[in-house]
Amino acid sequence: MIETTTSRDTSVGIVEKKYFTFADAPDKLLLESGARLGPVTIAFETYGRLNAQQDNCILLTHAFSGDAHAAGYHASDSADDKPGWWDFLVGPGKGIDTDRYFVVCSNILGSCMGSTGPSSLNPETLTPYGLDFPMMTIGDMVVAQKALIDHLGISRLLAVIGGSVGGMQVLQWCVRFPEMVRAAVPVATTMRHSALAIAFNEIARQSIMADPNWKKGNYYGGPKPDMGLAVARMVGHVTYLSDQAMRRKFGRRLQDKANFSFGFDGDFQVESYLHHQGSKFVNRFDANSVLYITKASDYFDVVEQICTPGLIKGTEASKIKYLVVSYSSDWLYPTYQAKELVQSLKRCGQNVSFCEIEADCGHDAFLIPDQRFTRLIGGFLDGIS
Amino acid sequence: MIETTTSRDTSVGIVEKKYFTFADAPDKLLLESGARLGPVTIAFETYGRLNAQQDNCILLTHAFSGDAHAAGYHASDSADDKPGWWDFLVGPGKGIDTDRYFVVCSNILGSCMGSTGPSSLNPETLTPYGLDFPMMTIGDMVVAQKALIDHLGISRLLAVIGGSVGGMQVLQWCVRFPEMVRAAVPVATTMRHSALAIAFNEIARQSIMADPNWKKGNYYGGPKPDMGLAVARMVGHVTYLSDQAMRRKFGRRLQDKANFSFGFDGDFQVESYLHHQGSKFVNRFDANSVLYITKASDYFDVVEQICTPGLIKGTEASKIKYLVVSYSSDWLYPTYQAKELVQSLKRCGQNVSFCEIEADCGHDAFLIPDQRFTRLIGGFLDGIS
Repeated sequence: MIETTTSRDTSVGIVEKKYFTFADAPDKLLLESGARLGPVTIAFETYGRLNAQQDNCILLTHAFSGDAHAAGYHASDSADDKPGWWDFLVGPGKGIDTDRYFVVCSNILGSCMGSTGPSSLNPETLTPYGLDFPMMTIGDMVVAQKALIDHLGISRLLAVIGGSVGGMQVLQWCVRFPEMVRAAVPVATTMRHSALAIAFNEIARQSIMADPNWKKGNYYGGPKPDMGLAVARMVGHVTYLSDQAMRRKFGRRLQDKANFSFGFDGDFQVESYLHHQGSKFVNRFDANSVLYITKASDYFDVVEQICTPGLIKGTEASKIKYLVVSYSSDWLYPTYQAKELVQSLKRCGQNVSFCEIEADCGHDAFLIPDQRFTRLIGGFLDGIS
Repeated sequence: MIETTTSRDTSVGIVEKKYFTFADAPDKLLLESGARLGPVTIAFETYGRLNAQQDNCILLTHAFSGDAHAAGYHASDSADDKPGWWDFLVGPGKGIDTDRYFVVCSNILGSCMGSTGPSSLNPETLTPYGLDFPMMTIGDMVVAQKALIDHLGISRLLAVIGGSVGGMQVLQWCVRFPEMVRAAVPVATTMRHSALAIAFNEIARQSIMADPNWKKGNYYGGPKPDMGLAVARMVGHVTYLSDQAMRRKFGRRLQDKANFSFGFDGDFQVESYLHHQGSKFVNRFDANSVLYITKASDYFDVVEQICTPGLIKGTEASKIKYLVVSYSSDWLYPTYQAKELVQSLKRCGQNVSFCEIEADCGHDAFLIPDQRFTRLIGGFLDGIS
């Protein structure tokens, strides 16, 4: 894999996190479950400028534990001055060229990175929602994104692009608001979770709920279910990697030791790495958000909408142009699932391109700088804009 | 897959669990870590009869959470009257024919199914060992098995056969006591754990150690770390299955419901199945044994012994005959790892046969009745006896 380098000079520069609040009482948002939620705040960032025709907007949809910070740097974030999660892809002259496109990325509903989620204050009780937060779906996330896009005055998106749970949002946009989508790029994703994917999510949830500090979700203000959340993250993290990547990255190398410890502190580098991933996650993410977002991804199922000819409608002119991307070593959402998506879309007469990228780094490949991916996205966008 | 049926009529019948105790003070067993342990009790069962020449003994080595009960029924076990874990393979006229062979299976050191392990009484404190139990290795397990085999008056085994962690014991026998092994059948196993396998084991350990009831292993007599152990088992269980098997067995079917619950009790059948596996395991297995046995399997590494020509010695007449078996959908110990073993053995001039069995049920395939496996083992044994 050829990696691209990311530097401040080629990035969108300093960006600002913004907030949009809607669905205030009494007009709360009606969720798919039938519950109502409001007010809803959506954190978002934008890069580039909306053109006069308002037809150059690209919406990026982030993965499970992602956030609105897709590109550039936060000025205030000097202690943790990392570029956005797709900085290698989004910027002036990059695959998603901010000199040409107006790019929007918003934090999903149910998250804890600025948008309304279980850790937000419940206006009725003035305490965090916890499990009083209503169950929400990928569809609800997309409805909230649409409210933001409406608010920004954009009637049609040039493209919706996202990986993993972000790819589910892309597909949900296509079946829910097809008239608003010119092109869609679902990356490393699936039309619905397999039993294996549900199993790993359920293990993560069980791990959190087994932590006595979880207290049925009512832990805000007290000790947090950090141990359970760390184990949940380790489980998730392993599913994002691959056998090959782990062999290459860690093999059986020992951590700062010449010999086995014959104890339980962790001998192998892969163990320390997992501990590190667990602790890092605990410091930045809310356990209840993991419960809600994993559940939303398990519920997600657009097979019926996508596979039933006629359900995805559109004249030739209004048809969505799809680019489906999978990675060869992704075993969470394997290529065979991407191919099922491609075949279903084709059977329904949709305009679909497909690319499986050879990469040994598993599901996480879409977050790793790769010029092949950058060029693929750039070329695809050239073809529609 | 063609399944064989198992009935009481074709089984070895009622069998009895026996115990062998050795290495009493002051002659404690010296472990690979340098620690000493004793007395050591090994639980075992035998099926068939030792012949006059004492050359028809087959040792079966069990997997991680297995036990000595490989075949037949326990008379006392009316409440849980299940046949042994390889009953489809071991019995009169079966693949491992108890009319011809004297079959021994013993519970591994460190387990909680009758052999000495962390839940056993420490003779020095008269309380359970807990974490005072010394770390032990696959090599130590095999040394304990050899003490039992010596005690039974057997100087050479016709074959050592086992799957998964049992397969590691088979390989350990070959490098440690090659002169005592005529044939070896390592099934669904590896010469050493990959980073992926270590990662899943470490997640299981972290889950147990995160349970506040674990109390650094000192929970005997009080509440047990059941929640952590259940999550650990769920993690392990998923690695024993395969994407295909889970799709076939569960797909996205809901549990007793027509609709989503929009709650966290588990909607999908695969979730209930995992909960069930977790609870079942908690009732039969000791959390500390999981820690010790997973660690032993992570430490296991016979690559150097097997891959260095000359290290596995033997004249033509005394050479071990190997049959290496892997399963096509086993992603915990994938076929590529079995092939590495086969190639290493061949490079060292060993006599090796290899068979990859096409099966979609993942690592657990070796525990599922399959006439192809039964015939393969039977034919191989015919060729050496």
